[in-house]
Amino acid sequence: MKTPQKPWSGRFSSPTKASIEQFTESVSFDCRLAPYDVRASRAHADALHSAGILTKREHQRIDKALREILMEIENGKFQFKAELEDVHMNIEHRLRKKIGDLAGKLHTARSRNDLIAADMRLYIKDAATAIANLITALQKTIVEKAEKNIKVIMPGYTHLQRAQPVLFAHHLMAYYEMLARDYGRIADAAMRADVCPLGSCALAGTALPIDWEAEAKALGFSATARNSIDAVSDRDFVIEFLAVAAIIMIHLSRLAEEIILWSSTEFGFITLPDEICTGSSIMPHKKNPDVAELIRGKTGRVVGALTAMITIMKGLPLSYNRDFQEDKENLFNAVDTVAACLEMARELISGARINADVMERAADSAFLTSVDLTDYLVLKGIPFRTAHQLVGKIVRSCEQTGKNLQDLTLKEFRAFSTVFEKDVSRLLSARGSVERKTGKFSTSPKEVQKSIHHAQCELEKRK
Amino acid sequence: MKTPQKPWSGRFSSPTKASIEQFTESVSFDCRLAPYDVRASRAHADALHSAGILTKREHQRIDKALREILMEIENGKFQFKAELEDVHMNIEHRLRKKIGDLAGKLHTARSRNDLIAADMRLYIKDAATAIANLITALQKTIVEKAEKNIKVIMPGYTHLQRAQPVLFAHHLMAYYEMLARDYGRIADAAMRADVCPLGSCALAGTALPIDWEAEAKALGFSATARNSIDAVSDRDFVIEFLAVAAIIMIHLSRLAEEIILWSSTEFGFITLPDEICTGSSIMPHKKNPDVAELIRGKTGRVVGALTAMITIMKGLPLSYNRDFQEDKENLFNAVDTVAACLEMARELISGARINADVMERAADSAFLTSVDLTDYLVLKGIPFRTAHQLVGKIVRSCEQTGKNLQDLTLKEFRAFSTVFEKDVSRLLSARGSVERKTGKFSTSPKEVQKSIHHAQCELEKRK
Amino acid sequence: MKTPQKPWSGRFSSPTKASIEQFTESVSFDCRLAPYDVRASRAHADALHSAGILTKREHQRIDKALREILMEIENGKFQFKAELEDVHMNIEHRLRKKIGDLAGKLHTARSRNDLIAADMRLYIKDAATAIANLITALQKTIVEKAEKNIKVIMPGYTHLQRAQPVLFAHHLMAYYEMLARDYGRIADAAMRADVCPLGSCALAGTALPIDWEAEAKALGFSATARNSIDAVSDRDFVIEFLAVAAIIMIHLSRLAEEIILWSSTEFGFITLPDEICTGSSIMPHKKNPDVAELIRGKTGRVVGALTAMITIMKGLPLSYNRDFQEDKENLFNAVDTVAACLEMARELISGARINADVMERAADSAFLTSVDLTDYLVLKGIPFRTAHQLVGKIVRSCEQTGKNLQDLTLKEFRAFSTVFEKDVSRLLSARGSVERKTGKFSTSPKEVQKSIHHAQCELEKRK
Amino acid sequence: MKTPQKPWSGRFSSPTKASIEQFTESVSFDCRLAPYDVRASRAHADALHSAGILTKREHQRIDKALREILMEIENGKFQFKAELEDVHMNIEHRLRKKIGDLAGKLHTARSRNDLIAADMRLYIKDAATAIANLITALQKTIVEKAEKNIKVIMPGYTHLQRAQPVLFAHHLMAYYEMLARDYGRIADAAMRADVCPLGSCALAGTALPIDWEAEAKALGFSATARNSIDAVSDRDFVIEFLAVAAIIMIHLSRLAEEIILWSSTEFGFITLPDEICTGSSIMPHKKNPDVAELIRGKTGRVVGALTAMITIMKGLPLSYNRDFQEDKENLFNAVDTVAACLEMARELISGARINADVMERAADSAFLTSVDLTDYLVLKGIPFRTAHQLVGKIVRSCEQTGKNLQDLTLKEFRAFSTVFEKDVSRLLSARGSVERKTGKFSTSPKEVQKSIHHAQCELEKRK
Repeated sequence: MKTPQKPWSGRFSSPTKASIEQFTESVSFDCRLAPYDVRASRAHADALHSAGILTKREHQRIDKALREILMEIENGKFQFKAELEDVHMNIEHRLRKKIGDLAGKLHTARSRNDLIAADMRLYIKDAATAIANLITALQKTIVEKAEKNIKVIMPGYTHLQRAQPVLFAHHLMAYYEMLARDYGRIADAAMRADVCPLGSCALAGTALPIDWEAEAKALGFSATARNSIDAVSDRDFVIEFLAVAAIIMIHLSRLAEEIILWSSTEFGFITLPDEICTGSSIMPHKKNPDVAELIRGKTGRVVGALTAMITIMKGLPLSYNRDFQEDKENLFNAVDTVAACLEMARELISGARINADVMERAADSAFLTSVDLTDYLVLKGIPFRTAHQLVGKIVRSCEQTGKNLQDLTLKEFRAFSTVFEKDVSRLLSARGSVERKTGKFSTSPKEVQKSIHHAQCELEKRK
Repeated sequence: MKTPQKPWSGRFSSPTKASIEQFTESVSFDCRLAPYDVRASRAHADALHSAGILTKREHQRIDKALREILMEIENGKFQFKAELEDVHMNIEHRLRKKIGDLAGKLHTARSRNDLIAADMRLYIKDAATAIANLITALQKTIVEKAEKNIKVIMPGYTHLQRAQPVLFAHHLMAYYEMLARDYGRIADAAMRADVCPLGSCALAGTALPIDWEAEAKALGFSATARNSIDAVSDRDFVIEFLAVAAIIMIHLSRLAEEIILWSSTEFGFITLPDEICTGSSIMPHKKNPDVAELIRGKTGRVVGALTAMITIMKGLPLSYNRDFQEDKENLFNAVDTVAACLEMARELISGARINADVMERAADSAFLTSVDLTDYLVLKGIPFRTAHQLVGKIVRSCEQTGKNLQDLTLKEFRAFSTVFEKDVSRLLSARGSVERKTGKFSTSPKEVQKSIHHAQCELEKRK
Repeated sequence: MKTPQKPWSGRFSSPTKASIEQFTESVSFDCRLAPYDVRASRAHADALHSAGILTKREHQRIDKALREILMEIENGKFQFKAELEDVHMNIEHRLRKKIGDLAGKLHTARSRNDLIAADMRLYIKDAATAIANLITALQKTIVEKAEKNIKVIMPGYTHLQRAQPVLFAHHLMAYYEMLARDYGRIADAAMRADVCPLGSCALAGTALPIDWEAEAKALGFSATARNSIDAVSDRDFVIEFLAVAAIIMIHLSRLAEEIILWSSTEFGFITLPDEICTGSSIMPHKKNPDVAELIRGKTGRVVGALTAMITIMKGLPLSYNRDFQEDKENLFNAVDTVAACLEMARELISGARINADVMERAADSAFLTSVDLTDYLVLKGIPFRTAHQLVGKIVRSCEQTGKNLQDLTLKEFRAFSTVFEKDVSRLLSARGSVERKTGKFSTSPKEVQKSIHHAQCELEKRK
Repeated sequence: MKTPQKPWSGRFSSPTKASIEQFTESVSFDCRLAPYDVRASRAHADALHSAGILTKREHQRIDKALREILMEIENGKFQFKAELEDVHMNIEHRLRKKIGDLAGKLHTARSRNDLIAADMRLYIKDAATAIANLITALQKTIVEKAEKNIKVIMPGYTHLQRAQPVLFAHHLMAYYEMLARDYGRIADAAMRADVCPLGSCALAGTALPIDWEAEAKALGFSATARNSIDAVSDRDFVIEFLAVAAIIMIHLSRLAEEIILWSSTEFGFITLPDEICTGSSIMPHKKNPDVAELIRGKTGRVVGALTAMITIMKGLPLSYNRDFQEDKENLFNAVDTVAACLEMARELISGARINADVMERAADSAFLTSVDLTDYLVLKGIPFRTAHQLVGKIVRSCEQTGKNLQDLTLKEFRAFSTVFEKDVSRLLSARGSVERKTGKFSTSPKEVQKSIHHAQCELEKRK
């Protein structure tokens, strides 16, 4: 096949080497931006027409051809070619096939520098919406699961040691909160990306009389850039998006870790359904929480993409540098990963069978109500630190005799302090502990019910 | 010195080993949170009093002692001791010295888990304000420098190759825009951190009748947390802050790189004043841009802190884990670094002497107005791609004959195309190129002047 | 205090601003290199004397003063001053106090660029030795613990699901192997750092007749550098060391994770002694594996240091750049962290009480010997995949009826396949499974015993 | 298409969901390991035959089928299917098509856990060899370029300020040294990866009588693993390889930065040939060093892969976890990137036209021989620091009068110090400075020539 002429070959005396061509091409991945590139070109053709640079007839021919090209792209019939470097030149080349030299007019008053920035921003706005919707879907599933299991009690953990009894719904709703922050961060990142760089051209702007605000508006941007040099030098929107993506993955990795722990034989808190597990090629009894493990593992991928982008941008002078080309695969990879992991996390939560008995038995285990015992003493007027030490002694004594707090008689309690009275027995069960809570946003059943209701309203409003 | 008893030693049969104590202590760095810890304790004492857990007299004694402790901290007279583990226990221990066992009552209805989260959030809110102010100060200096040098022309670069003439002020204002985004991100991060975790206690909340909303309000928080487990498990506010800090450093590293380039003999665009340079211990002629190099280098420190925090949080189960202790040094280090680098960047921009002649001479160099030439042809009706190739040929021919575009006669131009007419000569100077620009946010002097004015208004509003 | 004159102030017309001085100083952390700096200076004075640049008398005066300075440093009496920038100038300044202008001769034929590289390499060689010794100590503790618990059986895990019975000693010895690789990597890194950069001066070498090989040898280096520009530009030895450190921390983080899991109520495999645990300020029953959590958390710190160094070095032109100054705190911090964590890991392994009964009970739980059952069928001539599916069916049937493999009668086995015979019962216990293993480096007791013996020999040889 | 049965489906009651299948499949990338997987299977079949588990006839049928499969893979005719999960199951499925149930016997005494580790190690050994060869090729090109330009003088830089004259060959050979260390690191990493994990099976080893040492040897491994649990838990070899790759990229990023600087108009030290440059779509005069920029940018990709792998492994309990699946794309991506960048760096160095005049003119510029002047004074008996300050004053005076050192008359020199004599003039040219150097590994022409010769011998020995 004859290599098509490069758009910039006029000045060059030797053709590009094949290995160089392969090293520098980007169409193998930036082809994903093709629909955005066509959209941007159609808006640009409109603007060139309004500015009198394209005649009505020229504009119509270009627009018709671009619409055909979009259809080819959407139908998977567009043939991207590496020797045409990037998505822009592939599309322009196809345009030239359709309408000849007129195609050359479309690149008036623009450059690949501002065009790629526009494509990327259009993509990121769509990606942000998609991910926000997946966050919402996951939050909904969490709220449903929490509501359905509102009575289930489990041990709350600090340091992976059983600490105090809590409602399982309360624990689950902690993830609702993390995701609510993620939702806010995605919205902020999308808002800052919602700026149209077109009009910057290579870096300096243009002398041609184009209405850049109209072009931005036509593409659905809220504003134009404010400085043409910044507009082609800036990849903040990629880094910020990746940072937000990394935090989402941190949250999902923690959820994944808990699902792995909970579905272990040792915890036994949940059972994952067969259809979202895989087995072992050698151990027939195994049912592995692979999906959760992969979510946890894929955290590395997104963190790696963030580190990559930061490393790339560090110390680069203005304005456009070819290093920026590396932004795309990192971003696409992260978007796909986060989207898939949010979807899979939903499957895990929705599918997990809650073993309420196992959880509650664990929550009722030794000493988890010791804080309640301390509070009891505080309410009897004993300073907190003294009460804490006293309960510590009771716990140590129980450990030595193999007893549980519930096993102690009033007499035994009073051997430690005479402030203990009969009512002490009422506060030593997990359920008693949870139900006696009163504090706002605590694990009190009433508070948890309120938070579920509040979440339902919040999700309703997003529609 | 006799090691004071640990607050949690009641249950333990052997004292902590010294090496363990040294490994686990945090007071050597979390002492920095002491003023916030006292503030949180004073608000908590108020709340305990309102709830009837402290008598008026007890409350007064605690509050007076806490105020004395705050003064000791502020005067540098407070003696932090590693064997007391952390900032909380150091302060409680001092309180006990002052008011005896009554001190023990203060820890009622709270835990170090929610207390440290409150301290950190108070700190981050202050740090965000400080950094926002430093961003504003740097932006002001940029605007002043731009305004003062509004007529200076320099070559704009892409790929570090001279591309087109631009106003130096326009280039500088690109940094204004980056910092404006940073300002927005800091504000968003601070807003999300502005949530009071107190009331979560260890993780489950409490049965004691405290008004947590009042306590949050007293500390200047806009809201309480919404889930007690999330509130003690969450370090998003640290990660988000570090991500924002890393992006600021990316921006400063790019500015530093340009300052290093510009003050090289090869560029010679600026001269740094002696008082912000250092010399060589061996080469007497050297004047090194160390401050810019250190800013660029310190980017690594902040990026490292971000990576560290992400690595720490990945895959941790809820709720509090001791791993979180590692959040502090990373955060403090990043805040100090960003603050110092913003300040130093201001010194560099403010102090740099602009060598306007050198810049303009470079901007007038060969071929930088080739885009203007292309635009000329486009306005004569030649399709862009054809015009681009034609100008490419002119450039190549000039290179072969050692001529500049300005050196070509009309006849020579017309040898390439007969559309060239006399008026071609007017557009071949750097100043002519810049002044002919008309586009919004382009390097047109009128547009740059407008952007400076707009920036001045924006900064004015921040007051 | 009067600011002492800078060594490079001759050319400069204004003194350095105080805030710049604070920003650029490094002595607050590079003071740690002071003993190496004095060593390097003493060797350099010897070389200058041998080259005839210092007279015998001059050499003696310099050497005596340097020895006094070293003593001051070692006794903590040396006063480092920030206004003297760095460790080199602090020491030279002190030398000048002692011997006047003669001090100025010492900096002949060297520069801070090659001197700091020498100091860092001397430090890293010592650090490597120290860490190698701590690795050896931890390996010893592992071997001792393994030998002492040679009969203990536990469940081996894949995907955190119980997989097959293994010897606890075998599991522990996996960490021995990881550490053996770490030991090799540290040695390789130290070997590559063992190169003397002195003689490079600022970057170009010198015309003065110094014997650089003798100077290198006097400092204990195995070789001189091979290129003076590389020698002052290179920080590979820091990055490689940090990469090795990060891998060590990955290993320790995995050990820490297992210790946290094992000491949870759910696993209960080990009990950590009180003296290496800490408690809760609010929950008197808690005994938290803080030391293990901190090791896991401190992984972030070392990974962050690695990322920082990589970010710093990326894209820097040769030769020395001031950005390099940032190498020190990252390196020191990583060395201290790895050393402390290795020591703490030793405490954890040495101190952990092994709950052999709990472990073995877990290993004897349902289905862990299913592979043994598969192997049984394979040895009866059934193709592996068929055997695997058959055992899968038996497991599923057991799950449905709530039975364990050990509970099945021969008749029940034969309902699945008639190849089952009486001998099937012998292979269904955890101990039976482990003892039937024969493969090299498998969990067979004989093999594990051999590996322990082999390790003891390996450690013996290191002395 | 009917989904083929999973190898582990015996126990499972519901089929895997399609979205789960897509999320968990790895064959879309681990297909790259197919040739290694077949090699490992052939060696395993040999071993099973030797152990009497496969008959001679069975062995022959399996081996023949595997050889056919290998050919299909090599010819690109093998059809990988996502619904068959991974490379192992794809190959086993194809084997079953060819030889029926006998295929099932091949998975005797092994597991995907040890098989994938073997495949990865075989791949990494090959990748290490390939990269080592590319390093050698790049080093050769460097040596050739250095030798060819042995007389060219350029300014050496510190802080990107011209410091002292050096030979261009000396500067270039600094990269030879960096690459020599890279070569050593790759070799060390490959050596540590050269260990056969087969025999570990899932994690515990086996009871079947296989000769694992023979199998390891047949695959070209130097040794078997020493602990079966470690062997399936370990991904050190991936992390270490990525760390080495990251350091290589750091080196290439520095080279790329210099090429970008040198080919700028401001430096003008080199001219890149057209065939390895690309142009601008809008500015016809531009010739951009895209290849160098992409090398610099791709550093981020490899650093990101390293960070990803570290993040993945942190805190994972033993033994195999599904998170490990994420190791492959990171590794493959890094290997491809490093290989391509080494090759492209060779193109850049080989193709760059050295503008010797420009370089030498720059080296002869003001004050670069001030160290030589200082050395002159030192040899006249003036203490170094005094001499340094004196030369500093001369430089400052020259700057004020716009003179160069070469412009000063003896009388003017003597106004600063009477020790100056006539011979001072000889040392003030760049060439004079370089030629007067004598030190080992300095920029002395003789030393540089020696280092080139030494490098040639070193490269010769690698064959």
